[in-house]
Amino acid sequence: MFTLTVRDHIMIAHSLPDPFFGPAQNLHGATFTVETTWARPVLDEHGVVLDIGVASQLLSGVLDGLRYRNLDDHPDFTGRLSTTEVLAQYIAERLAAGAAGIAGLDRLTVTLRENPDAWASYTLELPVLTERGGPTSR
Amino acid sequence: MFTLTVRDHIMIAHSLPDPFFGPAQNLHGATFTVETTWARPVLDEHGVVLDIGVASQLLSGVLDGLRYRNLDDHPDFTGRLSTTEVLAQYIAERLAAGAAGIAGLDRLTVTLRENPDAWASYTLELPVLTERGGPTSR
Amino acid sequence: MFTLTVRDHIMIAHSLPDPFFGPAQNLHGATFTVETTWARPVLDEHGVVLDIGVASQLLSGVLDGLRYRNLDDHPDFTGRLSTTEVLAQYIAERLAAGAAGIAGLDRLTVTLRENPDAWASYTLELPVLTERGGPTSR
Amino acid sequence: MFTLTVRDHIMIAHSLPDPFFGPAQNLHGATFTVETTWARPVLDEHGVVLDIGVASQLLSGVLDGLRYRNLDDHPDFTGRLSTTEVLAQYIAERLAAGAAGIAGLDRLTVTLRENPDAWASYTLELPVLTERGGPTSR
Amino acid sequence: MFTLTVRDHIMIAHSLPDPFFGPAQNLHGATFTVETTWARPVLDEHGVVLDIGVASQLLSGVLDGLRYRNLDDHPDFTGRLSTTEVLAQYIAERLAAGAAGIAGLDRLTVTLRENPDAWASYTLELPVLTERGGPTSR
Amino acid sequence: MFTLTVRDHIMIAHSLPDPFFGPAQNLHGATFTVETTWARPVLDEHGVVLDIGVASQLLSGVLDGLRYRNLDDHPDFTGRLSTTEVLAQYIAERLAAGAAGIAGLDRLTVTLRENPDAWASYTLELPVLTERGGPTSR
Repeated sequence: MFTLTVRDHIMIAHSLPDPFFGPAQNLHGATFTVETTWARPVLDEHGVVLDIGVASQLLSGVLDGLRYRNLDDHPDFTGRLSTTEVLAQYIAERLAAGAAGIAGLDRLTVTLRENPDAWASYTLELPVLTERGGPTSR
Repeated sequence: MFTLTVRDHIMIAHSLPDPFFGPAQNLHGATFTVETTWARPVLDEHGVVLDIGVASQLLSGVLDGLRYRNLDDHPDFTGRLSTTEVLAQYIAERLAAGAAGIAGLDRLTVTLRENPDAWASYTLELPVLTERGGPTSR
Repeated sequence: MFTLTVRDHIMIAHSLPDPFFGPAQNLHGATFTVETTWARPVLDEHGVVLDIGVASQLLSGVLDGLRYRNLDDHPDFTGRLSTTEVLAQYIAERLAAGAAGIAGLDRLTVTLRENPDAWASYTLELPVLTERGGPTSR
Repeated sequence: MFTLTVRDHIMIAHSLPDPFFGPAQNLHGATFTVETTWARPVLDEHGVVLDIGVASQLLSGVLDGLRYRNLDDHPDFTGRLSTTEVLAQYIAERLAAGAAGIAGLDRLTVTLRENPDAWASYTLELPVLTERGGPTSR
Repeated sequence: MFTLTVRDHIMIAHSLPDPFFGPAQNLHGATFTVETTWARPVLDEHGVVLDIGVASQLLSGVLDGLRYRNLDDHPDFTGRLSTTEVLAQYIAERLAAGAAGIAGLDRLTVTLRENPDAWASYTLELPVLTERGGPTSR
Repeated sequence: MFTLTVRDHIMIAHSLPDPFFGPAQNLHGATFTVETTWARPVLDEHGVVLDIGVASQLLSGVLDGLRYRNLDDHPDFTGRLSTTEVLAQYIAERLAAGAAGIAGLDRLTVTLRENPDAWASYTLELPVLTERGGPTSR
């Protein structure tokens, strides 16, 4: 199995309004470094998992909707807790949708580092596409 | 699959008294940064794998028994080589015991970094608990 | 010259309401890792610049007033831009006040890392205290 | 499952002569930090996955053939694109060959970090050896 | 004194054709992460050393002339050894020229990290500009 | 001013037998990553501060006397507290002695990182040598 990872970051505000979260119920914020790891069992015809430029643009395209935002006011998080885990899943699902036409990818992991001592990740199995592009069952 | 990782560190002395270990047979020491990664397939009702505070306290509780210790004198390592791998397993098993009542956790990985160029890990499958708390077979 | 550095972090929300700051005019947030470097020309009687525990508590004491806060609502930043540089100075000045009774310290640098690609610092000369504790001119 | 990772680095020149790679078609270069992670389900009689010294020598032995080289002139890459993914596989296969006589190893992952924002890996299942050294089917 | 640092990276090929450099006489390459630290004694009217966006663009503008290049063919290094130290000075001098119209800056340090175990820097005193922009002696 | 830094590490045991140090009075240990930064105002005839190989060998030569040792039994620390600051000075002074014949060096800083959240350094001014090698006053 091969993987390729590209990294970017976002700086957001949010609150976690549930007594479970203690002081993080307050409006605060975070720098999230976001690592996206794409996996595939066989390299493509250029000898890569995915072009680094394409992987970076996919990521940037998803993160642009979050940069310098207060997630408490973001329509995609209305009524949802924007925990690190939920954000990892949100980013992964949008990335997977953006990569839907790329054949051969197998799995995607998104890791969000919120401070030097804590991080979270979400892993998504990707539908396998044949070279002609149609999903197949596995 | 979701994961949450929290990190802490310990500073210990020990020796590895087997000719296999060359100069590490001497009494020496290490700073181990300890990363503990908890995995679960579905988030809990607060949208997390585990509360970061709970994960940090579980880790701290296990590490408190090791901090500023000479492992050669530690009863849990009498007659055992305290290699990085053995320590990772030791910490993982105690963490798993401490988390025994938490439903939904699936797997735990403990990684110990001993210097910038070497680290080791141990991964443990956790017994699956239903929400009512009893282990089930998988 | 000797230095000792201890590190902690905070997670805050804020905005920078000046067109100069482009998208950072929005309410957003940051994880700041905070490194505090204390310098002194001669070690104290215990062979240290400062006890690491004392240095950590001094830092924690200052950061506790900022943790999980929206700086836009913080009285100390009313009418002030809470840029990374301004925050570094704010933290340094409070740390210096907290350490006012400790003889022998010479200089303090506070570095705030806001993301993997950007950080800022502020350096403060500390008044020299003789062992009896009174400031002297240099 | 246990893992042991050791790290080293190489500094090489190469080009990726395919329009797909844009500016990386030019002769340029990279520092690759190389992390090699060996996995085994049960520790050996010394309580380790592999001796760190042995793991480091295996890695160094493979990297010595690449250090300070222009991969465009390296016979092993004639007619092949030396992408990060291809290099990870190349290193992993040579490491696996070098470790062919070591019983109990299960899996090897080689990760090459090419800059702070991009890295790639290759994972290889290793043939299982019994203690007498012959491969067995699984 | 305040500082602001922004970071970027380049991936280049070069050789160091002097027997002094041993194996680095060969054509090889490097990923250089480039940290540029701007210092000023007093913050500007926006409470910053320099806008992060401006600092990043200044850096990117200089690095664009080096990205994905073989420095052995670069006209600015004809007949010069492109050591890490020389590159740090080269980048610093071009940055200083690019920032020539910005008042209040005092000093610039450029640090190039070439691998996890080695880095070099160059520090340049900047001509002091009054707010009206003319250099003054100090 | 130019600097060159090279990094290595040691793994040692020690105790700090003074009530001031709390739990660190116990025999414990540390991994110290050791960064040595050499400064000089003008590059040498090869365009470097110091050859990286020479800088690494100087460092390794000093660290070899400390690797895998219990500093409580080391003759150079008899009756002395081996704090991080004292160790930084010890290493710096030996490095300076080892580099005594190298002209043009100006200043040496040794930084010891003992865990992710704490590090210390010592800076030594070096006697200036003319190219003929004799120290001069400044």
